[in-house]
Amino acid sequence: MRAAVLHSARDLRIERNAPPEMGAGQVLVRVHAGGICGSDLHYYLHGGFGSVRLKEPMILGHEVAGVIERVATGVTGVAPGQIVAINPSRPCHDCRYCRIGLQNQCLNMRFYGSAMPFPHVQGGFRELLVCDADQVIPLPETVSPYEAAFAEPLAVALHALARAGSLLGRRVLVAGAGPIGALIVAAARAAGAGEIVATDLHDAALATVLKVGADRAINIAKAPDALAAFEADKGWFDTMFEAAGSAETLLTGLKVVRARGTIVQVGQGAQASLPMSMLVTKEIDLVGTFRFHAEFALAADFIARRRIDVRPLLTEVLPLADAVKAFELAADRTRAMKVQLSFD
Amino acid sequence: MRAAVLHSARDLRIERNAPPEMGAGQVLVRVHAGGICGSDLHYYLHGGFGSVRLKEPMILGHEVAGVIERVATGVTGVAPGQIVAINPSRPCHDCRYCRIGLQNQCLNMRFYGSAMPFPHVQGGFRELLVCDADQVIPLPETVSPYEAAFAEPLAVALHALARAGSLLGRRVLVAGAGPIGALIVAAARAAGAGEIVATDLHDAALATVLKVGADRAINIAKAPDALAAFEADKGWFDTMFEAAGSAETLLTGLKVVRARGTIVQVGQGAQASLPMSMLVTKEIDLVGTFRFHAEFALAADFIARRRIDVRPLLTEVLPLADAVKAFELAADRTRAMKVQLSFD
Amino acid sequence: MRAAVLHSARDLRIERNAPPEMGAGQVLVRVHAGGICGSDLHYYLHGGFGSVRLKEPMILGHEVAGVIERVATGVTGVAPGQIVAINPSRPCHDCRYCRIGLQNQCLNMRFYGSAMPFPHVQGGFRELLVCDADQVIPLPETVSPYEAAFAEPLAVALHALARAGSLLGRRVLVAGAGPIGALIVAAARAAGAGEIVATDLHDAALATVLKVGADRAINIAKAPDALAAFEADKGWFDTMFEAAGSAETLLTGLKVVRARGTIVQVGQGAQASLPMSMLVTKEIDLVGTFRFHAEFALAADFIARRRIDVRPLLTEVLPLADAVKAFELAADRTRAMKVQLSFD
Amino acid sequence: MRAAVLHSARDLRIERNAPPEMGAGQVLVRVHAGGICGSDLHYYLHGGFGSVRLKEPMILGHEVAGVIERVATGVTGVAPGQIVAINPSRPCHDCRYCRIGLQNQCLNMRFYGSAMPFPHVQGGFRELLVCDADQVIPLPETVSPYEAAFAEPLAVALHALARAGSLLGRRVLVAGAGPIGALIVAAARAAGAGEIVATDLHDAALATVLKVGADRAINIAKAPDALAAFEADKGWFDTMFEAAGSAETLLTGLKVVRARGTIVQVGQGAQASLPMSMLVTKEIDLVGTFRFHAEFALAADFIARRRIDVRPLLTEVLPLADAVKAFELAADRTRAMKVQLSFD
Repeated sequence: MRAAVLHSARDLRIERNAPPEMGAGQVLVRVHAGGICGSDLHYYLHGGFGSVRLKEPMILGHEVAGVIERVATGVTGVAPGQIVAINPSRPCHDCRYCRIGLQNQCLNMRFYGSAMPFPHVQGGFRELLVCDADQVIPLPETVSPYEAAFAEPLAVALHALARAGSLLGRRVLVAGAGPIGALIVAAARAAGAGEIVATDLHDAALATVLKVGADRAINIAKAPDALAAFEADKGWFDTMFEAAGSAETLLTGLKVVRARGTIVQVGQGAQASLPMSMLVTKEIDLVGTFRFHAEFALAADFIARRRIDVRPLLTEVLPLADAVKAFELAADRTRAMKVQLSFD
Repeated sequence: MRAAVLHSARDLRIERNAPPEMGAGQVLVRVHAGGICGSDLHYYLHGGFGSVRLKEPMILGHEVAGVIERVATGVTGVAPGQIVAINPSRPCHDCRYCRIGLQNQCLNMRFYGSAMPFPHVQGGFRELLVCDADQVIPLPETVSPYEAAFAEPLAVALHALARAGSLLGRRVLVAGAGPIGALIVAAARAAGAGEIVATDLHDAALATVLKVGADRAINIAKAPDALAAFEADKGWFDTMFEAAGSAETLLTGLKVVRARGTIVQVGQGAQASLPMSMLVTKEIDLVGTFRFHAEFALAADFIARRRIDVRPLLTEVLPLADAVKAFELAADRTRAMKVQLSFD
Repeated sequence: MRAAVLHSARDLRIERNAPPEMGAGQVLVRVHAGGICGSDLHYYLHGGFGSVRLKEPMILGHEVAGVIERVATGVTGVAPGQIVAINPSRPCHDCRYCRIGLQNQCLNMRFYGSAMPFPHVQGGFRELLVCDADQVIPLPETVSPYEAAFAEPLAVALHALARAGSLLGRRVLVAGAGPIGALIVAAARAAGAGEIVATDLHDAALATVLKVGADRAINIAKAPDALAAFEADKGWFDTMFEAAGSAETLLTGLKVVRARGTIVQVGQGAQASLPMSMLVTKEIDLVGTFRFHAEFALAADFIARRRIDVRPLLTEVLPLADAVKAFELAADRTRAMKVQLSFD
Repeated sequence: MRAAVLHSARDLRIERNAPPEMGAGQVLVRVHAGGICGSDLHYYLHGGFGSVRLKEPMILGHEVAGVIERVATGVTGVAPGQIVAINPSRPCHDCRYCRIGLQNQCLNMRFYGSAMPFPHVQGGFRELLVCDADQVIPLPETVSPYEAAFAEPLAVALHALARAGSLLGRRVLVAGAGPIGALIVAAARAAGAGEIVATDLHDAALATVLKVGADRAINIAKAPDALAAFEADKGWFDTMFEAAGSAETLLTGLKVVRARGTIVQVGQGAQASLPMSMLVTKEIDLVGTFRFHAEFALAADFIARRRIDVRPLLTEVLPLADAVKAFELAADRTRAMKVQLSFD
């Protein structure tokens, strides 16, 4: 079984391991598609992010989908041959947060391809993957594994929406049109937002978000003052999703979001130097969003029914053998939205 | 009629003006008590705050109470001789925000003693004040005008609580035990908070908050690491009120507030340099709070029934003639919680 | 100017009146389309509903749209020739409820074609109508007045959704597929509901809701036990909209809505004999919904952009001269979804 | 070990059983106090309620407190000699509802003294009780076991409050002043309600609620029209707790609760014949409340600190040998608020 194993920054190797053992209540999945996420890129480019550092070789990847190869005796509801989206999130269901329904905040989370715990949690960029049966969601044959592998980032986007409350008829600003920002645009459109404005620094990204639901796309590198028109009467937008991870973008948001509006902070950026008085006097709700829980099943369902069509976001699929090339492409925002690996 | 008129930073004069004219639907109040607020102090010490600067002489003061002297023909519900709390907030009831019930965000607000608009809105530190009848709330004779003058800052505290949702049984941290922080402690106790911890840099302030409902008071100047014990399992407190206006305090809050907890930002401070990743990964709600609306009547009622006893907060009452001395005392947090002027 | 005036039950007359006078801040609209609503039908068939009775001749109608003929001097934002949806709701903006943003609960509401106040508020089934400028919303020429006249019932549906909170990914049951039920289906689809099941007694209605977004339509006259399958584990649906006004339907809802789910009661029916213990032990939220406020502008916008396509709901348009025939058709649920009058 | 075992309606016997075996992770409690609840009374008087019927002998009781006798090896946090409140609610923590934090809706709940499952879940009216360590909450010695035995009904009251959202400053009507209604009054006062009106048919009950926080108590048997004064402007109260289980009371609530107000249905009564149009047009939220989860620890804490003083509610304590007499007294609402058994 081949896997994409990161040894240190920019040292990504295709290695052969023994195939994993399937236990009770589990399924064996032949992985077909694996999307490269921003955190995968951070590991690849920098060996980690923030205080999280790679301390041992780790298989990357958590946006994976495939076809069920075998199921353990007694497992029901799934069958060999089914295309499945694979949920990389495995909460303990027993800690303080799991007990109140906040499984995404689990104190003992085991999330694929994460160097937060040690030993690290190995990821999904591999040909064969053993999962618990409740991690896989079967999809109809009309959907490809490449679409199925969007279930994870779409779940992230849907969770960000859940943090904002109903968007029905709301004026929405999505700042940052990378894969998560673009999926937030698509999800906001599916959730009945009234008007969606997206911003980014790159025209290619903005062209994509127009395809998935934005009413207007603004290149703030070219038109840095374009949002000033939204500042009147304490601000135009009801809700902003800050998906750029930029302090400057957040500052703009404080100006263009109306009093008592909401800013969902998606991007993690570094330090944000904020004028607290603006948040205070306009009574903005600035809320964080992290990963997902119930939203994974919803994302898979929306992809299955194509209520959200993720295909415009797929830039290119490269074979596992070209993993390094795929990571380099994924790192180039002028060309890439979402790059996936194929394990066929 | 005498009034406390600020001409520029530290140039506060007691001046005699013609008594104001009472119009239809109005009442004439003889002011007895006027509390010195942080914004009054900012005007007095610095001639303004942030981008708001004094551009013409202005009567200070918005925490005022008195006794009704006369009421215009046709005004009902109030009568000469009644002790009244005076609501300094006058929204237009017609703008975009008023129309959705957010009168505290009124685009045309006329708030006593504010240099935000020009001409400035003259304040309430004067012997005679004309108000609209719906600005005054009669209180029973068991309550003094000095207590009544706490209705405004208590309304600010109650509005901060409203921004946090129900506190029943919640673990609450109040950081900053100035007058607003102390009133938040008292209000949180009245709202059924489970455990209230207050912090400040001054022992005098902490001694006071223990009298009005804090379970524990911590001097973080003396015990800078005392809050570290609350960081385990992503944080202890459900809700924090940041009433210190300090970036460092807010940072501490991000550490000790639990995942999905709420931080109500009350203090305006200057710039806050925040690690966004902590707000994001813990999914904190950081929400601003500004002034009040419906809470003024509630504050007056709580004072009337002494459900919240504000008397422990009153440091000293000085006559109007000693206004400068009163302002200097109010500026000294080692000695003063709330200083009021008497206009008798 | 001709108008459809109801004198008593089933005594509907086309009468000629003097054209209305336009005042300051107003516009004169030539009405083109007028939808017959359930309350119009109640007046027509029974002379009223509940305790509301017709006490003087009244022009019916509140689902109207037309083309602006003239605008008063100084009115901006609208111009002659524009197709407009007309908001029949005129709250006072000054009462207890308006002041907290609940204009639909206005104590002094003047809603077109309503016999609640006396003298009655005359309605919109007339050739010429004078409105306040803020009652009309211009639509693009790509939309017909017949679509525009759906803005009012769509606003009712959107308000019902607002009462339910976010529907994103929710399992929704819409019981009763009349015009409001059908528009709730369409709105729930636009709001990202996960699965929508609709029920009714008539196949024609069910065929229509399948066109506007229902995943499944069940004729409970033919399959009275079809919903029993949704009772397991305390119930399947997250949210139910009871748009049938039937006690029996509501009872079914209590069985098939999950614990802590929501039932939005839209239909007014008569008495509902409910087993309280089921509402209590499952902790259902049973919430009423009435008319709309902010949702009118949103409805007009969704129609303008065809984010919700109302055209499948339009059964037939009859000329004003055939108003009686139109009302009789509208009363026949086996044939009619929405019947409109044309005033051309 | 003696226990109060119900064999059929009014056949309550004091029987001797073998003492229970303590397993790993458990504690053995010597029970001191056991409050008689409405459901115990229903079993005693009628052999069940609704569709729940006694099918085998069952030890009654779920409001119990005692002193820890022994703890299993490895159990920490509790020690022999401690007074403890005992949580009778044992959810599975694994079903659909537990997984979203709604443990009180657990599909596999094992609640003390309940005939819902078969075999029945034996209750706590016994001298010795084995519990899981996480069921017991130690209280300070300043609190008696009789107070501690109020933790369960107080948790029910606090959960009812949680269903209503923040009560800070709200106008609250508590209809029905039995033990739960009275505890709701006490909890609403502790939660900062603005004004609390309580109603009942019995003066004794009303006298008690005035002691624990009601501002006004109305005997609606003597003054059936006393609430009519609260109907103006669509209703006076923000929130009503219907703790009488009476359709007539609920109907009154629909009249006196303001538009968009909330009615929390606590009592289960039988059928309620409701005019749906009133719920619809006033957009009332009618929400059920059932048992509790997190509120048990909060109740124990409030009793421990005497933030809620339950002592005025304790009518009489009778020895286990007089259990029949105790049940007969508890059934007489003209004399009894809360009757407890002593197992000493």
